[in-house]
Amino acid sequence: MGGNGHTSRVWKGESTSGTPYSPVSNTGAGFYFVLRRAQLPFTGFFKVKTVSEVYPILERFSSVGQEEIPLDRSLHRILAEDIVSPMHLPPFNRSTVDGYAVKARDTFGASETNPTPLRLIGEVLMGASTDLVLSGGEAAAVPTGGMVPEGADAVLMLEFAEQLDETTIQVKRALSPLENVTKKGEDIKKGEKILSQGHRIRPQDMGAMAAFGKSVVTVHRKPRVSIVSSGDEIVEINDNPKPGEIRDMNQYSLSALVEMAGGVALFMGIARDSFENLKSLSEQGVQASDMLIISGGSSVGTLDYTTDVIRSLPDSEIMVHGVSLRPGKPTIIGRTSTKPVAGLPGHPVSAMVVFDLFMRPLIWRLAGYVPPLWSLGRRIPAILSRNVSSPPGREEYIRVRAEERDGQVLAHPILGKSGSISTMVEANGLIKVDIDSEGLEEGTMVEVLLF
Amino acid sequence: MGGNGHTSRVWKGESTSGTPYSPVSNTGAGFYFVLRRAQLPFTGFFKVKTVSEVYPILERFSSVGQEEIPLDRSLHRILAEDIVSPMHLPPFNRSTVDGYAVKARDTFGASETNPTPLRLIGEVLMGASTDLVLSGGEAAAVPTGGMVPEGADAVLMLEFAEQLDETTIQVKRALSPLENVTKKGEDIKKGEKILSQGHRIRPQDMGAMAAFGKSVVTVHRKPRVSIVSSGDEIVEINDNPKPGEIRDMNQYSLSALVEMAGGVALFMGIARDSFENLKSLSEQGVQASDMLIISGGSSVGTLDYTTDVIRSLPDSEIMVHGVSLRPGKPTIIGRTSTKPVAGLPGHPVSAMVVFDLFMRPLIWRLAGYVPPLWSLGRRIPAILSRNVSSPPGREEYIRVRAEERDGQVLAHPILGKSGSISTMVEANGLIKVDIDSEGLEEGTMVEVLLF
Repeated sequence: MGGNGHTSRVWKGESTSGTPYSPVSNTGAGFYFVLRRAQLPFTGFFKVKTVSEVYPILERFSSVGQEEIPLDRSLHRILAEDIVSPMHLPPFNRSTVDGYAVKARDTFGASETNPTPLRLIGEVLMGASTDLVLSGGEAAAVPTGGMVPEGADAVLMLEFAEQLDETTIQVKRALSPLENVTKKGEDIKKGEKILSQGHRIRPQDMGAMAAFGKSVVTVHRKPRVSIVSSGDEIVEINDNPKPGEIRDMNQYSLSALVEMAGGVALFMGIARDSFENLKSLSEQGVQASDMLIISGGSSVGTLDYTTDVIRSLPDSEIMVHGVSLRPGKPTIIGRTSTKPVAGLPGHPVSAMVVFDLFMRPLIWRLAGYVPPLWSLGRRIPAILSRNVSSPPGREEYIRVRAEERDGQVLAHPILGKSGSISTMVEANGLIKVDIDSEGLEEGTMVEVLLF
Repeated sequence: MGGNGHTSRVWKGESTSGTPYSPVSNTGAGFYFVLRRAQLPFTGFFKVKTVSEVYPILERFSSVGQEEIPLDRSLHRILAEDIVSPMHLPPFNRSTVDGYAVKARDTFGASETNPTPLRLIGEVLMGASTDLVLSGGEAAAVPTGGMVPEGADAVLMLEFAEQLDETTIQVKRALSPLENVTKKGEDIKKGEKILSQGHRIRPQDMGAMAAFGKSVVTVHRKPRVSIVSSGDEIVEINDNPKPGEIRDMNQYSLSALVEMAGGVALFMGIARDSFENLKSLSEQGVQASDMLIISGGSSVGTLDYTTDVIRSLPDSEIMVHGVSLRPGKPTIIGRTSTKPVAGLPGHPVSAMVVFDLFMRPLIWRLAGYVPPLWSLGRRIPAILSRNVSSPPGREEYIRVRAEERDGQVLAHPILGKSGSISTMVEANGLIKVDIDSEGLEEGTMVEVLLF
């Protein structure tokens, strides 16, 4: 059950022969040239894809492998096996109250005013088996959770009994069969499948597995995702940025998003705007991990380098080069062998939107997670608090702050450039404006996708 | 800024002198006696509280202390300081496009058919400062993210310019001042508070802190929560339960719930149904942690022992002893010094409901978390798929499976005893039936509290 499943992963994509992309060498011919060719990648060379065209492409990737872990470390891990109970739960007929195990038919007709006497033949101890066998007219004391002895089929609650002496009780209420008894196997039956592979383990799932002694669980390995930041203007957090420079934000927000998606983030460093530097860090990232994200600088040069670097990796392919999406148009999704390699826009807002739409589902594929088709609680209905406009031809995502007021949720649009991190701090979700829409009116019911 | 803040915590409760609880010694006088006194704790001795009466009691507890951690480990930690930006962001006037920095007024009247020529005086390099100063009639090339030189107040996008030669461009569009420029401080101003203490750190918050070089963050320490399981019938997961015994489920589900609430779970072991054994493990738990949860066996004896053990701890008080809640009535909340000590019902369903209602908010108090009054996405509206009945006089929580169908969310009630772990595996949320209600009708709009 080793952790090396990913080395034998088989790429599910189409053949890469006859790729329409001819390599373009980067001459580094200075600013004048860069500005001219900047228009190329997203207009002529590659066909920009719609958001919905991207998803089938993500489905070509699959789980990076499996591993066995102890149950107590399994919270939020993804099951790689179906969980089938090897035993009945409860394993014996169990009392749900403190009282007296009886035969239900012995109590028929009993009432407060007309009690029925039964002979007390003994007591079941908590956590212990019992050899007691009830015959007609007999009762045995039993605690909550205790075993109901053979012959008994119901338990009389303490308050409906009166103990006359050491061997006699009065029954003041009639019971139906199985009253206050949890039957053996009533909760979970032996051989019953209670969880399926691809499921994300919750606290109650751990409880259920504990109940039948499943102390080791086979789960999908967490995908390792390496991150390379790029851009000549990007400096490390502890550097003092010179005029014109800016600290690397995406390294932190993307790493956190990777962890939240169930991956393990590895930061490889900041690449200068040079093909060689970006290629070297990218190769290290691919070596060290199951997936590579190149967080773009905001300059066009970086975009070109990213495309070229992905193409230079062994057995590589570029499947998505530009998406009709705002913010987030300059998104690149490719692969080297079975490992995804993505180029994300450098603006922090764009990077988060693209992560939410494409990177999280991609990491889920690698993690073996089979999410529900809809995700309850991630999308909530809200009333738009003012008009928003949007140019048609792109699916647009608008930041909102959703707030509850008088039992209604209002979505307040937050406008601001896609380089603005403060708008993401203020926002708690996104709303979508469809590709053909020119905007949404105040008062419209919208669906907020919570971060 | 050490992590020992909790030793100086001051208890905010009322005086404990004149406590109405007189100690009751446990004589261990066998089953007959236990059954008789089992009725006492929740009827005569203590007044059962309503759910809403419990919350003000939880507010007497407070943060266990603070610590400093590196930013890259701060995801989902709780801020113990307000975050104020020490600098403008962006720190310079920044271009949002590839193009030419200009004076907007030089472009007034320019159009495709009537272009205006400007003199190209140079180029701003990515990530670099520039000494260029624009005078009237001049332009400078600038990349996306690059610094806009002094004298310029707008950037002309590349596609609206034509470069005639090395020193001349034609402007084919009029610009308004600040067009395509993010002004210094436009995103975040120097001295602006962007996050408040008590906030739970999200990926975008980490990005914002990275932007201004905040590499070390002061957060509240994670509360350590020790868990003691109790009950003679409870055995460890790797034990082979004898007839009458059952494996410890709550150890696993409660530990996971503690982690999800932002705490660190410490499992202390399984206590037999004996005062001495429970007391010894409880004392070890209190020593090792900031809060103790005693997961009850299902027997009444354990409940009594739990009460007695809490009372035997130094500077102790029992504030809640029974809640008008189903499932979850036999809930105990007390304290020793400033540390909460809770006794939870042993049934897995009851334990999870009580955790959701009271333990999570309690851990949040210790964690310094100031949650929003409402939590978006935790509660979702749904349509009840069939009638449910509920006895009045208790607030009742009913397990449901919420499912989306044709754009509507349906809540399917899952009936089953509170000892049934499989119902919790099947469910993904709870709905509440108010204390005075006798039930809810099919088709009613309900609010699902997602797990």
